[in-house]
Amino acid sequence: MIHFSNYYSLVSKEAEDEGVDDLYEKIRNEKESGKIGYYTIVERKQELLEAIEAYIKNNTLLKKGKIRNIVVIGIGGSSLGAKAIDRLLHNKKKSTAPDLYFLENCDPLNIRESLSNFHKKETIFIVISKSGTTIETTSIFKYIIKKYAIKLGDKKTKERLIVITDSGSPLSKFAKKYSIAEFNIPKNVGGRFSVLTHVGLVPLALAGFNIEKLIDGARAFENSFFAREQDHLLHKAIYLNKNYPVKRINVLFAYASLFTYFNDWFVQLWGESLGKKDIAGNSVGLTPVGLTGSVDQHSFLQLIMDGPKDKSVTFLKIENFESTTHIPDISLDFLESTDYVNNHLFSDLINAQCDATMESLIRQKDIPVDGICFDKLNHKNVGALIYYFELLTSAMGILFHISTYDQPGVELGKQILKEKFPGGNQ
Amino acid sequence: MIHFSNYYSLVSKEAEDEGVDDLYEKIRNEKESGKIGYYTIVERKQELLEAIEAYIKNNTLLKKGKIRNIVVIGIGGSSLGAKAIDRLLHNKKKSTAPDLYFLENCDPLNIRESLSNFHKKETIFIVISKSGTTIETTSIFKYIIKKYAIKLGDKKTKERLIVITDSGSPLSKFAKKYSIAEFNIPKNVGGRFSVLTHVGLVPLALAGFNIEKLIDGARAFENSFFAREQDHLLHKAIYLNKNYPVKRINVLFAYASLFTYFNDWFVQLWGESLGKKDIAGNSVGLTPVGLTGSVDQHSFLQLIMDGPKDKSVTFLKIENFESTTHIPDISLDFLESTDYVNNHLFSDLINAQCDATMESLIRQKDIPVDGICFDKLNHKNVGALIYYFELLTSAMGILFHISTYDQPGVELGKQILKEKFPGGNQ
Repeated sequence: MIHFSNYYSLVSKEAEDEGVDDLYEKIRNEKESGKIGYYTIVERKQELLEAIEAYIKNNTLLKKGKIRNIVVIGIGGSSLGAKAIDRLLHNKKKSTAPDLYFLENCDPLNIRESLSNFHKKETIFIVISKSGTTIETTSIFKYIIKKYAIKLGDKKTKERLIVITDSGSPLSKFAKKYSIAEFNIPKNVGGRFSVLTHVGLVPLALAGFNIEKLIDGARAFENSFFAREQDHLLHKAIYLNKNYPVKRINVLFAYASLFTYFNDWFVQLWGESLGKKDIAGNSVGLTPVGLTGSVDQHSFLQLIMDGPKDKSVTFLKIENFESTTHIPDISLDFLESTDYVNNHLFSDLINAQCDATMESLIRQKDIPVDGICFDKLNHKNVGALIYYFELLTSAMGILFHISTYDQPGVELGKQILKEKFPGGNQ
Repeated sequence: MIHFSNYYSLVSKEAEDEGVDDLYEKIRNEKESGKIGYYTIVERKQELLEAIEAYIKNNTLLKKGKIRNIVVIGIGGSSLGAKAIDRLLHNKKKSTAPDLYFLENCDPLNIRESLSNFHKKETIFIVISKSGTTIETTSIFKYIIKKYAIKLGDKKTKERLIVITDSGSPLSKFAKKYSIAEFNIPKNVGGRFSVLTHVGLVPLALAGFNIEKLIDGARAFENSFFAREQDHLLHKAIYLNKNYPVKRINVLFAYASLFTYFNDWFVQLWGESLGKKDIAGNSVGLTPVGLTGSVDQHSFLQLIMDGPKDKSVTFLKIENFESTTHIPDISLDFLESTDYVNNHLFSDLINAQCDATMESLIRQKDIPVDGICFDKLNHKNVGALIYYFELLTSAMGILFHISTYDQPGVELGKQILKEKFPGGNQ
């Protein structure tokens, strides 16, 4: 269960209800148009699960328990979602299942360090690229082919490789030629909205996560939202739109170290979806910032409190950490002033820090604050949270009159890159 | 060697020279006043080194090579600097030296996970807190005392514990009572400016880093700046000040995965120093964002390119990665369009991506872009980079007419936290 709270009205009472029904209808229309696939992908649970189950059943290496490492080669939307979930739910997955690793960057020091621990016999490599020609991904894939002397077409190789890409892409054609197992990304689901397609689900399933519950969580939020039980999302979107561009930075302040990569996933979703030219040609966009509590109370909080009032802050916390780890009842000479937390759970301290920081911002009365609280950290809540942020992003895109699901701004850099290599521009 | 480049004038020609001498004089005055200690701490190299050498010489556990882990218990300015350097220069330290670990957050899942690998016999714990009563730090320290059955006052315990704090603080008094080894932070050096004091140097030295070269690098930049050889820094500060608040977000886009924690260090330094009420009572501040290239080309770049023109972007790259890892000359069927990078070093690819992205932003003509390029990744350059950002922060603080070195905005949250626990407010 997730509890949502909102204190925006303490800052300004604008837009309490105005436009809520209209926004809801627009979101529903976008969903029902079928043009944007993430809305309904979770309704195809059986189909998604059956394809993965069939793959696992037919892979003899997996059946024999020989696989220790699932290595994802992918960048951006091809890695951030699974990486976030892997970090968040690591303690909740099957402990005997293989571990997940991610090769994203063409930093040579990083590639060597990351690959130093993998034995080919214990590893399945998953190459993920929507377009099929992402330069980081294909380059690292080539490096792996050479390093591990992978023979394409070889029977054993087929069990060691998986490709996830758009159907008909160059990478798909490559996979077909060498009979490599392939999963496709629905064409109408963009990379940063693809975590609950096979892009995220295949690596997570192979690594022992309960992907069914993830989907169930997202599905439950979908149903609830479209049954008008989550109108707080619409109010929030309308508020953020009406107060743009004064409040143009959105902070997600998550009180658990495990949310670090989830923050990265949020930053991509929000930044890349909403940083656009609108239909009138104006540059719009909200800048996402991911913080970890309480660590970033010692880093970024001062700026939020006393700096320009251009930020909204969403607090994210886990009510029950399901941990008994507590601060011992030890009183140290001269440090008695810290004893007030003795005998309390560490989780009580971090949650009290979250509440205290939230209150300190609310009292300012010029910082819009809202809260998202998990009862527990589990697959269902994480699935729901993903769907919540995807819906919120769609809502913002509709209000901004932008094309939420593309990323035209990154093409120029890719073009210039090719010009820097002989033969790159052919 | 570090090369600095700047393309701000393509966006606006404001403030080319005006105020440069004045700003320089103000910085020099601040340095010479002696009120702000980080400026000159690097001039006390011998004193800093000798204290650490004496400690190492007298610790029998270190001498016997029994220590495998140096565990820092500290948060914010007490950990971010050493953590950044540890990540950046890990391949450059003595390979036989102990590894560094950081316990920062009171997230119970994180504490248990982090402590699962340490054997007491192989570990030195360093407790760092400027005030001496940081609640996260003292709470984790108590947990460690209990978990490892540490007997305060015991002879062996003395060799396993180090305290780094302000002289006269409660933690200092505690250390003195139990004869625990203690290093002090100069009172006039704030936490986020303390990486080149014993706060950063002690853990780094124990973990086999060449702290002398770190200081030498910072010292060289200090000398060069005060000899007026680095006026680009003054120009940059004046530009950022004159263009505030239109350009109010500063992106540091570092093209190497190893810079991740350095970005965190920068975010604290910039955000906490500059997010302030100025002398007229106005809220000012620049919002820092740390990105990693090329990964975040697939995440945040779209927002920079097409979103609101409220950002400046500083690119950071390493000219020579000293790596021979290259993309093999393998042509994959249907993926021939990616072959233009074959046979090139991975470092050439990541650097070309940096250059291409930089050029794509410069061509926009409404995004201020500058570049920082290391010839190599080494201790001297990292030391210089730290001093560069510290000086730039001081310059901005002077121009904003703010109190750069305090953080009054975080006190309210600390007060509310205490109210949440019985006995907290005594």
